[in-house]
Amino acid sequence: MTDSDTAPKKILIVTAHPEPRSLNASLSAFAADELRAAGHEVRTSDLYAMKWKATVDADDFPDHSPEDRLAVMPASERATTANRLTPDVAAEQEKVLWSDALILQFPMWWFSAPAILKGWIDRVFTAGFGYGPLLPPPYSEGALGGRRALISVTLGARESSFSDRGIHGRLTDVLHPLQHGLFWFAGIAPLEPFALYGIDTDLPQDRVEAAKHAYARRLSTLFTDTPVPYRTLTGGAYDHDMRLLPNAEREGTSGLDLHIAAP
Amino acid sequence: MTDSDTAPKKILIVTAHPEPRSLNASLSAFAADELRAAGHEVRTSDLYAMKWKATVDADDFPDHSPEDRLAVMPASERATTANRLTPDVAAEQEKVLWSDALILQFPMWWFSAPAILKGWIDRVFTAGFGYGPLLPPPYSEGALGGRRALISVTLGARESSFSDRGIHGRLTDVLHPLQHGLFWFAGIAPLEPFALYGIDTDLPQDRVEAAKHAYARRLSTLFTDTPVPYRTLTGGAYDHDMRLLPNAEREGTSGLDLHIAAP
Repeated sequence: MTDSDTAPKKILIVTAHPEPRSLNASLSAFAADELRAAGHEVRTSDLYAMKWKATVDADDFPDHSPEDRLAVMPASERATTANRLTPDVAAEQEKVLWSDALILQFPMWWFSAPAILKGWIDRVFTAGFGYGPLLPPPYSEGALGGRRALISVTLGARESSFSDRGIHGRLTDVLHPLQHGLFWFAGIAPLEPFALYGIDTDLPQDRVEAAKHAYARRLSTLFTDTPVPYRTLTGGAYDHDMRLLPNAEREGTSGLDLHIAAP
Repeated sequence: MTDSDTAPKKILIVTAHPEPRSLNASLSAFAADELRAAGHEVRTSDLYAMKWKATVDADDFPDHSPEDRLAVMPASERATTANRLTPDVAAEQEKVLWSDALILQFPMWWFSAPAILKGWIDRVFTAGFGYGPLLPPPYSEGALGGRRALISVTLGARESSFSDRGIHGRLTDVLHPLQHGLFWFAGIAPLEPFALYGIDTDLPQDRVEAAKHAYARRLSTLFTDTPVPYRTLTGGAYDHDMRLLPNAEREGTSGLDLHIAAP
């Protein structure tokens, strides 16, 4: 461990659960306490408490004229470049830029993030901020390089059902749109997700404590764990059409694992 | 083709784009015209035009007491069973039940559906409607069996980047949370998605016409195309922990393809 691994860091925790007394809310509060106790700085975005607007629409772009056809990508890029985003979006972008690590805390709903969190992503990661022609190439240093991200997710299902041969698909494949499609696309290095399975409504207190204990262990290595070693777009493994070159995969890999560089 | 393939059917088209003059909006209007011209009945849910509420919260459950901790799954199941959902959700459930086929029309944003559409899924597919212990097992006849679904998606990226070796992942894997996690989980048979790649803001009119032509062809076989042959949970291929049995996969398959029964 180097000095920079143990130096105080800045963490943004984004939480998406409607109930302040939920396990998700308590895991986020617990993480904030743990990380602060370890000397780090923490900021939070509790999306339900903030009454976060989930939907991208014309109101997001104050300079967009209502008579004009709304093309989201160009409107998003113009507003970002001109510093004319709405205050709520600008505030979240500032938090992301401030952070060394991002934690997304959410319950899995229909095999992805709750809509309010998807709306945080859709609205905050604007063209010119999270992606776009004015930025470094995706899947590399990207727009937001130098940061890492941890998904902390609760699931009602059993772990076996999200295992390699589980019917829901491997958790890592189900979360690919976030891990690779959002984080890694924007240059943020994703860690293996922290997943709590079999989460019922009335979780016994001993299981809550066990969950916090396990989460504390994961948080203690937030800045030393090796991120998922996704390939960079610019590292020579892809052709000009963004396809992995013939025989570039590790032996025996297929599917989404093609895009992982090391075992 | 049997009689039942050519008999008039009922189709629900759900659209998620903020601009009424967008390609997405025009594809949905085009689909409605085409399907009606073929003798089918069509209903639509234009989520932005409806100002669809994207976020699941306590207001979704009128019988939920604000003093009580909101546990979403039980609250959702109680409200569904007691016929005490909000009118907007009840109306969408009625449309889904009415339909023989569901079309979701959306632009790919951050490798998944726009938040407003995720919020339609989160709010409409309640426990007791789309999933839950009171319903038939998932990934089988399911809650909503006998229906089929088509995703019609526009993407800015090139087709190669979503191909087998494309860096974004295969489109079928990226859409797994919807195709397998939503539709097939609830018993709805998903068709291969209809995808339009390289969609720029100002698409030349000849490309719009070509897109409509291709879409018309797909729509003409909406009720005769073979759905993606996902495995059923109850068909004998999975163990009691919902894992695919050893050696049950087709030779050479791995990843999310494990859950497809035939080539």
